[in-house]
Amino acid sequence: MSEKIKESEVDIVIAALSPNLTAFLEEWRSFFSPFHLIIVKDPNMEEDLQIPAGFDLQVYTKSDMEGVTGATSINFSGHSCRYFGYLVSRKKFIISIDDDCLPAKDNSGAIINAVAQHLTNLETPATPFFFNTLYDPYQKGADFVRGYPFSMRSGVECMLSCGLWLNYSDYDAPTQIVKQNERNARYVDAVMTIPMRVMMPVSGINIGFNREVLGPALLPGLRLPGEGKRRWETMEDIWSGFCAKVVCDHLGLGVKSGLPYVWRSDIEDGGSALESLKREPEGVKLMEEVVPFFQSVRLPRTLVKAEDCVIEIAGMVRENLGPINPVFIQAANAMEEWVNLWKALGSHGA
Amino acid sequence: MSEKIKESEVDIVIAALSPNLTAFLEEWRSFFSPFHLIIVKDPNMEEDLQIPAGFDLQVYTKSDMEGVTGATSINFSGHSCRYFGYLVSRKKFIISIDDDCLPAKDNSGAIINAVAQHLTNLETPATPFFFNTLYDPYQKGADFVRGYPFSMRSGVECMLSCGLWLNYSDYDAPTQIVKQNERNARYVDAVMTIPMRVMMPVSGINIGFNREVLGPALLPGLRLPGEGKRRWETMEDIWSGFCAKVVCDHLGLGVKSGLPYVWRSDIEDGGSALESLKREPEGVKLMEEVVPFFQSVRLPRTLVKAEDCVIEIAGMVRENLGPINPVFIQAANAMEEWVNLWKALGSHGA
Repeated sequence: MSEKIKESEVDIVIAALSPNLTAFLEEWRSFFSPFHLIIVKDPNMEEDLQIPAGFDLQVYTKSDMEGVTGATSINFSGHSCRYFGYLVSRKKFIISIDDDCLPAKDNSGAIINAVAQHLTNLETPATPFFFNTLYDPYQKGADFVRGYPFSMRSGVECMLSCGLWLNYSDYDAPTQIVKQNERNARYVDAVMTIPMRVMMPVSGINIGFNREVLGPALLPGLRLPGEGKRRWETMEDIWSGFCAKVVCDHLGLGVKSGLPYVWRSDIEDGGSALESLKREPEGVKLMEEVVPFFQSVRLPRTLVKAEDCVIEIAGMVRENLGPINPVFIQAANAMEEWVNLWKALGSHGA
Repeated sequence: MSEKIKESEVDIVIAALSPNLTAFLEEWRSFFSPFHLIIVKDPNMEEDLQIPAGFDLQVYTKSDMEGVTGATSINFSGHSCRYFGYLVSRKKFIISIDDDCLPAKDNSGAIINAVAQHLTNLETPATPFFFNTLYDPYQKGADFVRGYPFSMRSGVECMLSCGLWLNYSDYDAPTQIVKQNERNARYVDAVMTIPMRVMMPVSGINIGFNREVLGPALLPGLRLPGEGKRRWETMEDIWSGFCAKVVCDHLGLGVKSGLPYVWRSDIEDGGSALESLKREPEGVKLMEEVVPFFQSVRLPRTLVKAEDCVIEIAGMVRENLGPINPVFIQAANAMEEWVNLWKALGSHGA
């Protein structure tokens, strides 16, 4: 469980939503360059990509998507284009960071290697059965607190590492409008396991995961009508995070949240949040149905693979959420198509 | 829910395990002096207490215990003497800090007012139904993350605030032996709600709670045979924390963990941890039974007061844990006696 992850086992997947990746990749160069990069160009973007030299990378575009997936109702546009990278990767691990994020600094002013921290989170066990008040017991200088049963200390394998954001937090449009001048300066020096059966909103901005095991659950399922390219206009990552958490809970696997931080640039503004909200208050409303649904999902014990769990969840989505809003029927369809693609393309790898 | 707590509503309860409280109280003077202090002298300690002038305080000793409680099998010696303070207080809130702890400093070097932070934790809602990746949404500069349902944001009343420790972490004896030179320097700038149905080990070193509502569950229940005066020789606080968490989950109330930190002095050493372990490996073993038990406790909906919940739990302890070890029968008895004392003494206050 605690074996060191090799660089050759990792793909870094970048969703290119703006054409010029120069500043982004230059800032990340020292942390990204030991790894292979998969850059997926938003199929709705016309401009050519600008990518600096010196990286080991592969670019995927709209024509690759059409060639690989054939006829599919899965929509890979906007933030969802990254999922195409998850599908074509053959590596065990994926790190994915939004192209508007740069390396952040910790409290001592040191630049944070977000890739290394995600890999550490994935290398060390998660402890979902009991809460450790000292946070991640595997961090330097930490351990299990008095009263923590020794039998629970070995933990389980961590499958998903969710990082956080300095400067711009990942708020929804209404919160962004209310707090348009607020910046997040609070560096919380902790990683924690999200306990078993506890649901949380996974943001896709800055994550790492075990693609081999959990890949089928990291999928482009829920697409909001009128979804744009701003994070607060999307729910795809929140939805796929619920799928991933339910699957991890069912299979006895772990999810962590906390470090690493990335620096989210000041590219968004309250004015456009207001526009987003006028156009699309749907996502905020849908969560009122989505969260209780996923909190109640329990899967049959016979399911032991993520792909089978996702198919089961898709059926429950169609049955329980479908009658509320047709967007959920589409989500169920996309989940099933995703698993079919995953199998057909041999995405599991060896 | 979010009303400011008045100083007159708070008692600070100090368990005096060593006779000279001068340095302790002088260091805490500016933070403690607006409040009434209840100092409970360990009934096993012979020496006279040394207490500096200038505090509004009341000292309770062995003779007070005998006078107030009459014949009881509850053992108020060692760390458990603090519970006598919880019993005789008539205030709505209690803050309790061990007498080997001093004010800590935050990352900026500022001295932390632990009392104020506990009260803030108790004044602001807890959010146990869904995990917020940005930690306490009520902290300055924080909020609910994208995807957090608005209907869940109002949260519930926070009843218990569990603080942490710099310098010496609260480890069990085996961990203390292994890591006798380790000191905790990691200041994690976060408060979080422990989610519903998630159990954690509450340490009694540095806590605040709503005595009026939760007081009947903060009780001296589990006493280890051969229990000493070192934290790693005791489980009373872990046990009472489980009772409190189960009661809060049942009643829809909140528990927080994280800030404030206190500085635990270097009074303990690995050598004595080894002695403790030779004498008393019992606590570590018992947790293997205790944690699964409390994780499985579900209370009848008809119970709406903490005292009734505690009586119910005591019965379950006697039935389920009693056959494993007689120490659990004693714990069940102590829990029932505690509730009886609480009622007989009118500890609920008005």
